[in-house]
Amino acid sequence: MKGVARVVRLYHFTLTPLNPMALKNTRKTNYPEWYQNVIQASDMAEISASPGCMVIKPWGYGIWERIQRLLDDRFKATGHENCYFPLFIPLSFFQKEADHVEGFAKEMAVVTHSRLTQQDGKLVPASPLEEPLVVRPTSETIIADAFSKWIESYRDLPVLVNQWANVVRWEMRPRIFLRTREFLWQEGHTAHASYEEAEEETKKMLGVYAEFVENCMAMPVLQGRKPEHEKFPGAIDTYCIEAMMQDGRALQAGTSHFLGQNFAKSADIKFQSAEGKLEYAYTTSWGVSTRLIGGLIMTHADDEGMVVPPALAPYQIVIVPIIKNKDKKGEILEYAQKIYDLLKDKTFMGERVRVRLDDRAKESVDKNWEWIRKGAPIICEVGPRDIEKQGAMIKTRIYFGTPEGKQIVSIDDFAANIEERLAGIQKAMFDKANNQLHTHIRTDITTPEQLEEYFTAQNAWLEDNANPVCFVRGKWSGDPATEEKMKSMRITIRCIPFDQSGTEGVCLLSGKPATMDVIYARSY
Amino acid sequence: MKGVARVVRLYHFTLTPLNPMALKNTRKTNYPEWYQNVIQASDMAEISASPGCMVIKPWGYGIWERIQRLLDDRFKATGHENCYFPLFIPLSFFQKEADHVEGFAKEMAVVTHSRLTQQDGKLVPASPLEEPLVVRPTSETIIADAFSKWIESYRDLPVLVNQWANVVRWEMRPRIFLRTREFLWQEGHTAHASYEEAEEETKKMLGVYAEFVENCMAMPVLQGRKPEHEKFPGAIDTYCIEAMMQDGRALQAGTSHFLGQNFAKSADIKFQSAEGKLEYAYTTSWGVSTRLIGGLIMTHADDEGMVVPPALAPYQIVIVPIIKNKDKKGEILEYAQKIYDLLKDKTFMGERVRVRLDDRAKESVDKNWEWIRKGAPIICEVGPRDIEKQGAMIKTRIYFGTPEGKQIVSIDDFAANIEERLAGIQKAMFDKANNQLHTHIRTDITTPEQLEEYFTAQNAWLEDNANPVCFVRGKWSGDPATEEKMKSMRITIRCIPFDQSGTEGVCLLSGKPATMDVIYARSY
Repeated sequence: MKGVARVVRLYHFTLTPLNPMALKNTRKTNYPEWYQNVIQASDMAEISASPGCMVIKPWGYGIWERIQRLLDDRFKATGHENCYFPLFIPLSFFQKEADHVEGFAKEMAVVTHSRLTQQDGKLVPASPLEEPLVVRPTSETIIADAFSKWIESYRDLPVLVNQWANVVRWEMRPRIFLRTREFLWQEGHTAHASYEEAEEETKKMLGVYAEFVENCMAMPVLQGRKPEHEKFPGAIDTYCIEAMMQDGRALQAGTSHFLGQNFAKSADIKFQSAEGKLEYAYTTSWGVSTRLIGGLIMTHADDEGMVVPPALAPYQIVIVPIIKNKDKKGEILEYAQKIYDLLKDKTFMGERVRVRLDDRAKESVDKNWEWIRKGAPIICEVGPRDIEKQGAMIKTRIYFGTPEGKQIVSIDDFAANIEERLAGIQKAMFDKANNQLHTHIRTDITTPEQLEEYFTAQNAWLEDNANPVCFVRGKWSGDPATEEKMKSMRITIRCIPFDQSGTEGVCLLSGKPATMDVIYARSY
Repeated sequence: MKGVARVVRLYHFTLTPLNPMALKNTRKTNYPEWYQNVIQASDMAEISASPGCMVIKPWGYGIWERIQRLLDDRFKATGHENCYFPLFIPLSFFQKEADHVEGFAKEMAVVTHSRLTQQDGKLVPASPLEEPLVVRPTSETIIADAFSKWIESYRDLPVLVNQWANVVRWEMRPRIFLRTREFLWQEGHTAHASYEEAEEETKKMLGVYAEFVENCMAMPVLQGRKPEHEKFPGAIDTYCIEAMMQDGRALQAGTSHFLGQNFAKSADIKFQSAEGKLEYAYTTSWGVSTRLIGGLIMTHADDEGMVVPPALAPYQIVIVPIIKNKDKKGEILEYAQKIYDLLKDKTFMGERVRVRLDDRAKESVDKNWEWIRKGAPIICEVGPRDIEKQGAMIKTRIYFGTPEGKQIVSIDDFAANIEERLAGIQKAMFDKANNQLHTHIRTDITTPEQLEEYFTAQNAWLEDNANPVCFVRGKWSGDPATEEKMKSMRITIRCIPFDQSGTEGVCLLSGKPATMDVIYARSY
């Protein structure tokens, strides 16, 4: 308790005992376990009794609701409308696009029966379906079928729709937010009269994702194109945004697919052109999922728990009244309410700030730790002495454990500057992650031997991740024969960045001459 | 075209040719077909290639988004938080609550396999699951399982959560919005320390539904309790709101279930009370679904198509520029934009008005009919002559075909009074529906003979629904033996209204003495 006494001397009233639910693991001691610990400590989600599925709890779902709202506004601003398409896809629909079924066949959940009946005291499926139904792993096939009915003439184009939905992919090694059998996502689907327009849409929506992820999630990303063997099954081109986690592994944060006429041909999406000719439409699809929350955790959480950027925090400011003497309770709550009222009409990023007065019947120290573990950007503690001074203790989550992390401020100043304060936090979080990204891209590896040596050395990271593994930016020949070598090194090409240098060099896998720059990395 | 000529004389510029997609059926000629025609003409939804499922299209989904937003705000204001629970429920979970499985067994879709494989050139399900999974028809069992982990002490109570989700019930006679195999809904689930508190929650949420449905959907409802045989499977009591469609049939618009300790016992939701005793919690659940949109159509649509109340309309005002002379196009669009700008910051029901300037490259007369069929509350037409007068032609959807339906107004007045105008429309829609409800509840039927005679006579309605069939408010003995008689008369007891008269009378089914007032009706 010595450390505690020191804190008391520095800050006139806050006792800071040890976190009663401190994480069992840190990022250094065991990164994968630390990730699970953060989710549990922040109470964002849990593994459910339904095999491989998760329960998203209020704090986690609140973040997802923020992601939904902010993305949905962006989709609507770019002319998209929301629809809803069926959960079940007739099995025969997958037969139509060979690459597509190939890509998803292993991950499908199949409904074969309706009704249950009792048999020997046990419930069993009763009526076999005429045609089995696949629980959608993605909706290209069923949406293409709808488009084929909606589109007759070039005047019906473009069709620009999106849906917010659950999808199912039969993961064998589920991990909350990153890889669960059921997850939530949005999938945009569009149809266009020309190749160019569809390709432009694909890139535009990637840009929307990149802007959202960087500005709202404070996660810097690299933008590029997937190599042939990493494309979406059935696509001509897949574009992606790739983020770097704190362990240096890459996370694909969003993808946008240019589908060309592939799905139009398999589902017969034809339109009469302005010139009167019957042509196949060009389609696109693009999606992000609850996986983003996994990325958010691995980008921003620390050894105390979650850290949520202000743009996504269900509550940006939590006011915690410190009540030790019950006689003062009324007075303190009244003062806390006054601060709440000072803040509630302030705005940040064009919206009202989300402030909560936590007046639950719970020890204030427990509340304090709860909000630290959940990663609320600002905790505002108020006790009896603050009333005299019209002040408050402001704890800024990102500066936890440093002198900047606790400040005594006047409440009028606090309210007057709340927008700047939140913007400062948002920016600091982005800057920190951006700094990690850009200091961990190696460009000095120029031969296959160096690449192999680097990633072999990094295997030690699995036991001792004192330093994050780097992305390697280097040359690739594009030769499919190099895929095996990547597998053996447990790396993948994350993307072919849009900003190509055009220089000549040597493929880091085959040693052949190559000009294409790619990002090699370990990944999730 | 004679009728058209008359219109032209009355209104200086609007040509009103016949609706190019006029409904094939009217409410009088064929009510069930009329319902399908409205959905098609308004482009709200369509039957999908996935058997028994629907595709909800942008206008229909836009209405659902409004329902979601308005209800979600109300749930949050009453202390509920959103979560997300798994789509799949292990079959064994249903074994735990006998009434519950009994109620849903016939409607379940069952996942029995993962993976697909090619067999003789055909895709077939590959890997049987160890335990089949039910696609949730409702989530009491899986949520009760989660609650059993979340709740340890009375301090953890109440738990107040909600989820927005898709659910599946294997309907054999699907009908868009009313009865599809997959539908969208919200399901609230709560756990409490006492019987009284849980029962109060059940009634409170019914009240939230009633207030929302009446004030936002403009659908008057009767509130009451379901008779024993109509309860939710596994509930102690089911409360409901019942609305009357234009054909006089009842539609259950929302239900709220008091589950007592039934699910707590089957899922072992125990808590330590303040007195240190281990007790089972009391739970509730409550839900409304996309079925509400079916109710909205059958309450408000007319023989021209859909009519959407302002509170739910994706666009409350659509500005349609009338461009006949291309030279004037720029000028008219500029003027239309001016009206848009005058309106866009106005508010209605505490939100910004939703106004759209429809500048699509489409004939203005087609646009006009499109918005009439979709039921946009106000269409604002502007042509060259309006610019001189700084006026516009305002078409109010609910007054279609009457002199009130078209007004020439000054745009300044229009903008200044937009809130009142929308409120007037919202109120007029409610009043009209409320008038239909209260003029179609018969209270003068006092013997079983009269009841039978009335509903037998109403069978003719199926061929000639010149008049809606009435609800009958009368006595019921509560005797289960009366259920058969109701079946033969094709009626049900919709609810036992909260406002009981307490008078003595005769059961309208058994002829026995009875004091309980109930609502007998044909229903959806």
